[in-house]
Amino acid sequence: MAPIFDVVGIGNAIVDVVATVHEDALRKHGLVKGSMTLVGESDSAKLYESLGPAVERSGGSAANTVAGIAALGGKCAYIGRVGADALGDIFRHDFASLGVEVHVAREAGGQGTARCLVMVSPDAQRTMATYLGDAGHLGPDDVPEAVIKGAAWTYLEGYLFDRSAAKDAFRRAQMLARNHGRRVALTLSDAFCVRRHKADFLQLIRSGVDVLFANEVEVQELLGTADGAQVQRALEPMDMVAVVTRSERGSTVVTRNAVIDVPAETFGPLLDTTGAGDLYASGFLFGLANGAPLRECATLGSVCAGEVITHLGARPESSLRAVVASRGLASRLSPDR
Amino acid sequence: MAPIFDVVGIGNAIVDVVATVHEDALRKHGLVKGSMTLVGESDSAKLYESLGPAVERSGGSAANTVAGIAALGGKCAYIGRVGADALGDIFRHDFASLGVEVHVAREAGGQGTARCLVMVSPDAQRTMATYLGDAGHLGPDDVPEAVIKGAAWTYLEGYLFDRSAAKDAFRRAQMLARNHGRRVALTLSDAFCVRRHKADFLQLIRSGVDVLFANEVEVQELLGTADGAQVQRALEPMDMVAVVTRSERGSTVVTRNAVIDVPAETFGPLLDTTGAGDLYASGFLFGLANGAPLRECATLGSVCAGEVITHLGARPESSLRAVVASRGLASRLSPDR
Repeated sequence: MAPIFDVVGIGNAIVDVVATVHEDALRKHGLVKGSMTLVGESDSAKLYESLGPAVERSGGSAANTVAGIAALGGKCAYIGRVGADALGDIFRHDFASLGVEVHVAREAGGQGTARCLVMVSPDAQRTMATYLGDAGHLGPDDVPEAVIKGAAWTYLEGYLFDRSAAKDAFRRAQMLARNHGRRVALTLSDAFCVRRHKADFLQLIRSGVDVLFANEVEVQELLGTADGAQVQRALEPMDMVAVVTRSERGSTVVTRNAVIDVPAETFGPLLDTTGAGDLYASGFLFGLANGAPLRECATLGSVCAGEVITHLGARPESSLRAVVASRGLASRLSPDR
Repeated sequence: MAPIFDVVGIGNAIVDVVATVHEDALRKHGLVKGSMTLVGESDSAKLYESLGPAVERSGGSAANTVAGIAALGGKCAYIGRVGADALGDIFRHDFASLGVEVHVAREAGGQGTARCLVMVSPDAQRTMATYLGDAGHLGPDDVPEAVIKGAAWTYLEGYLFDRSAAKDAFRRAQMLARNHGRRVALTLSDAFCVRRHKADFLQLIRSGVDVLFANEVEVQELLGTADGAQVQRALEPMDMVAVVTRSERGSTVVTRNAVIDVPAETFGPLLDTTGAGDLYASGFLFGLANGAPLRECATLGSVCAGEVITHLGARPESSLRAVVASRGLASRLSPDR
């Protein structure tokens, strides 16, 4: 049976609270620039109090990726959990309005919709403090078999590895995808998250991941190297494509037979790197779902990442289809989408 | 006694839901481009459903003005009402983080924090549909005498004239300001609002308004003319300064003795006119509070309006102090603020 969806994403359904900060504020709160820290409700509230005026918008890593694929014209679904509150309604609305099939349970009387305080420093780097709230309650029961069966690709967000019920949800999704002959992609999300759950990540990969997304720090944490040829050797026993993103130096696609370097694409001054990795995955997965060769998938990734870093926030603001067409990749955008 | 605050604003405490739309969507929903329509909860929800992904941020006309004055270094207070919900918390946070003294009652079990659906069309015009929720419950009891007494200027948002309890709140604020020798500024907000409440607006003005802000359409609705000399004649019996904003053609300051035309200031491509009038009032009132001559007040207004229209949303994104300094007005920015 042909798949109904190009991609189904499973991730933390989060509303971003985006504010600009000075570097010394990060130091004062003991935050590591560029990292994501999980915080409790009271620490989240205290940190929020210290921030300047903010802008709220839907976020979440895999959610951003799915929003990007939908903006490109891909058919998507999304699985997650929010609270029965205004922020949860905002999250669901933003997805539904993109034509994404939303499987986001709305939890009454829970801990509320997850919030990520995104602190953008003057060098355009983002540092994140996430209060998971109801997003952290995702478990295997939230993963409908029909949705995984209906999607060419199941895309898993590494951040979820911080909760054991979510790990089980991943294992179920992977098993279902395998059983139905579908493919699985995984993003490592964060180096500290990889350090906390390295064995589990490796086990998930060995159980069947077709494409792995990671930046240099994350792949270094997982495999002890970020060098293309060495990554190739480390992954030789696994039949998997690894995609290593390298910020302004582009990305490297590693397969059993090839190491392909692809440059970054720029569309204006760098303002906020939030979402760069997420939108790179959008372009890459959209390419895969449309049968593009790997080098072109990586270029599509570079184009989408290049757009999102020219403005505040991790969701595309321009028409991604127009941006893709402007780089000579219009042939990938089928007219019926 | 010297005032504690430069300005206290009284207005509808609103969270903006900003989305881009095509012109035909406005037509389909019977909305007049550039206007503000009051809608009920279910119409607001229906309209929201039809919109694409949105960004949420604190809004409200007088609230935007106060945020701009605070960003310039002015001391401000704000009076309004929100719901006991996440959107209300966002509104209060964004103000408190600017150092604004917040007198915003938080209403449990009410109708929720007010929402304004801000629809930005490709020509950068904004069309607004506002569900007032708890903001509409503002009444005279919400106006603390000490705050009005403590502020050099009380700034009233015309939109509030759509609720009779809020009209009473305005009359109380005006009376208190008069009694304590403070000054009153009023913005007309919207031509349809002026049409609905013309007699009440004129009565409020006759009872003592020192500065009136209006765009050309609004002043035409109120006085039957937008021409500088004719506005001067119409207002002769009242001892009031009228400030007429004219979009890209700048603004006109009308006093008993002079009609002063001041050009607009531009800082980049026009992206979204939301907040242009609000931020113009920020610069003008900041100038007044700092003893600037009227022409310079108008230039400060042009500078602040010029910044806010270069990005989505009605709150300043750049450092307004730096923007003001870039136009040679640094002398107005006292170092101790």
